[in-house]
Amino acid sequence: MKFEISRTLLDNTLQSVSRGLSNKTPLPILMGIQLIAKDNLLTFITTNKEISVRVILESSDDLDIIEDGSCVVPGKYFVDIVKRIEGEKVEVTLFDQTTIKILSKNSDFTLRAYEKNNFPNTNFDLNTQPIVLKSKELKQIVKQTSFACASTEERIILTSINLTIKDDQLTVIATDSFRLARRTSSISSDFNSKIQINIPCKSLEEFSKILNDYNEDVNVYISNNQVLFKVANLSFMSRLVEGTYPDTSSLIPNDFLLSIKLNREELISVVNRASLFIDSENISFVKFSLSKNSNNIEISSNSTEIGRVVENLKPIEVSENQDFQIAFSTKYLMDALKAFETQDVIMYFRGEIRPAIITSESNVELKQLLIPVRTF
Amino acid sequence: MKFEISRTLLDNTLQSVSRGLSNKTPLPILMGIQLIAKDNLLTFITTNKEISVRVILESSDDLDIIEDGSCVVPGKYFVDIVKRIEGEKVEVTLFDQTTIKILSKNSDFTLRAYEKNNFPNTNFDLNTQPIVLKSKELKQIVKQTSFACASTEERIILTSINLTIKDDQLTVIATDSFRLARRTSSISSDFNSKIQINIPCKSLEEFSKILNDYNEDVNVYISNNQVLFKVANLSFMSRLVEGTYPDTSSLIPNDFLLSIKLNREELISVVNRASLFIDSENISFVKFSLSKNSNNIEISSNSTEIGRVVENLKPIEVSENQDFQIAFSTKYLMDALKAFETQDVIMYFRGEIRPAIITSESNVELKQLLIPVRTF
Repeated sequence: MKFEISRTLLDNTLQSVSRGLSNKTPLPILMGIQLIAKDNLLTFITTNKEISVRVILESSDDLDIIEDGSCVVPGKYFVDIVKRIEGEKVEVTLFDQTTIKILSKNSDFTLRAYEKNNFPNTNFDLNTQPIVLKSKELKQIVKQTSFACASTEERIILTSINLTIKDDQLTVIATDSFRLARRTSSISSDFNSKIQINIPCKSLEEFSKILNDYNEDVNVYISNNQVLFKVANLSFMSRLVEGTYPDTSSLIPNDFLLSIKLNREELISVVNRASLFIDSENISFVKFSLSKNSNNIEISSNSTEIGRVVENLKPIEVSENQDFQIAFSTKYLMDALKAFETQDVIMYFRGEIRPAIITSESNVELKQLLIPVRTF
Repeated sequence: MKFEISRTLLDNTLQSVSRGLSNKTPLPILMGIQLIAKDNLLTFITTNKEISVRVILESSDDLDIIEDGSCVVPGKYFVDIVKRIEGEKVEVTLFDQTTIKILSKNSDFTLRAYEKNNFPNTNFDLNTQPIVLKSKELKQIVKQTSFACASTEERIILTSINLTIKDDQLTVIATDSFRLARRTSSISSDFNSKIQINIPCKSLEEFSKILNDYNEDVNVYISNNQVLFKVANLSFMSRLVEGTYPDTSSLIPNDFLLSIKLNREELISVVNRASLFIDSENISFVKFSLSKNSNNIEISSNSTEIGRVVENLKPIEVSENQDFQIAFSTKYLMDALKAFETQDVIMYFRGEIRPAIITSESNVELKQLLIPVRTF
């Protein structure tokens, strides 16, 4: 195997495929990148237990495949070398099936290849009808929901993001049982029946990072136990999480006791200051107080040991002035507010100890649900 | 105590004095900032076991002292609050000697004050003749030497930086016994006798960070066990390390077997690539090989497990072509090279297992000594 490639093209390709590398694994081969040069195509493949990534490059001015062949190169070292070498072109040659030479400008690197027969078989073809999503929209969906996934594995299903496709609507839900993020999108799908899958949150976050380098549409293929994303010359496969995602459809009702419209940036600043007053477990809370006789909302936080902050925020609109108090974790509230890109948000309340909903008039597709805390 | 102050002025002042705060200490009072309002002056003081910092602000358009008094405010919280509040002006008021109110725009913060009588006495006057240094030069001296200090406390004296003032020359030395950094500077001093002190490396690094906000000259006052830096309205006091610094005067001789002049940036790139090949203890080495018959220098690094890199570097000048090999820790060599700001460096060698010296024709005041390793 021998090829000459533009350093920039190789570097960019490795940035994408390296997302599928294992860092620590009982199977060292999973720390390698499979390279296959064949029929004027150069293929890069990585795989770990969760995801597999493939990029296929065609011969071009930037890539000259001199000799066909294949090998598995130590991933981290290959990536780091290409990041640090200079020169416009890189020559990669496999000797004796065991030694990979990487030549660029004045640098002459030699790496030991992994035993290529140990590399697992990877499949990047699911023969299903794809859903087409804009790359930018998919990135936004992940950013607006993934933070709400459970970070511990007590209930594995909650470490995944739930996608439902029904008629021409995609609904994406993430929850750790203390808060919930729900985002809907219009799509054109040819599916007749409802489809529901659970994608590991980490897989979607990794794919979302790769998408920073792509503007093309993403084709999403779904099978029983896998989901495959294809964008331009890149394929990204993830396993699915088995099991039934909790039914959350009744959690976001349409009747409310009270709604408050607020400037989002202003509210973020206030919550940021309130988050200074942490308790002995490093958690901070923020309390909203409305009064029948005032047009302002008092937002406060305190810690018996340290002190207290009180702020007055002028709402843009309140549905009805009334005596009302509710408190939230500052972290969860902050995450929810940062998921929006709008100028204003509306908070809907049903009671002082019932879940609140945050949305925005200019982004009704996104709803953030927060369970209040009883600290005051 | 009550004063109104510009938020920017308060924020900048706190950035400087907070360098003297203890993070974790059996004495909580050392996590506080002492505030003293008196005679149209507002004084901020912090102290821990190593250093003390004081800033004195005069009444001005940016500072209105409304009522004299003093208190000790929780340092970290005061700093964080001022960083996050909005508005141009901040009002700080002490109530009942126990409660500090911080008002700004819509924010109303209350903090519990520390018991002010517990705050240690601090002294910021040493009645000695000062040495005057340019702020920029002092920062450069610290950057060019401090990295060579010992990071472990096996020999406390090596965790300090040694300063010698003799005639009109300042000599600054740092060493961890594997490498040594020496920087000389011309100063105008009125001292008749030689002065030698050891300043804790961490103290100098903290003061150097504060200096980023100052362009004025720095006055340095030295006593038996303390050093005091004064710049504009800021005073920075550090304890000295007791004991005799090792005599290193014979380590940098003037006779050499071989010298090589190299482009510094090029050499840094090569060493950066060589540092990829770490051994089982996470250490990497780089080997320089010269040959009687070649004008190039071969720079190489290898790891039996991973692979090998060989580079050819064209030197700007070699004193005499000869067969010669020497190896260094890539980390130590990199630190030494980064201490220079010059285009070229010269490496002086006395033998394959004897210390090498790095300097630059355009910066002869700086010398970096490296002990070679025998790995090849």
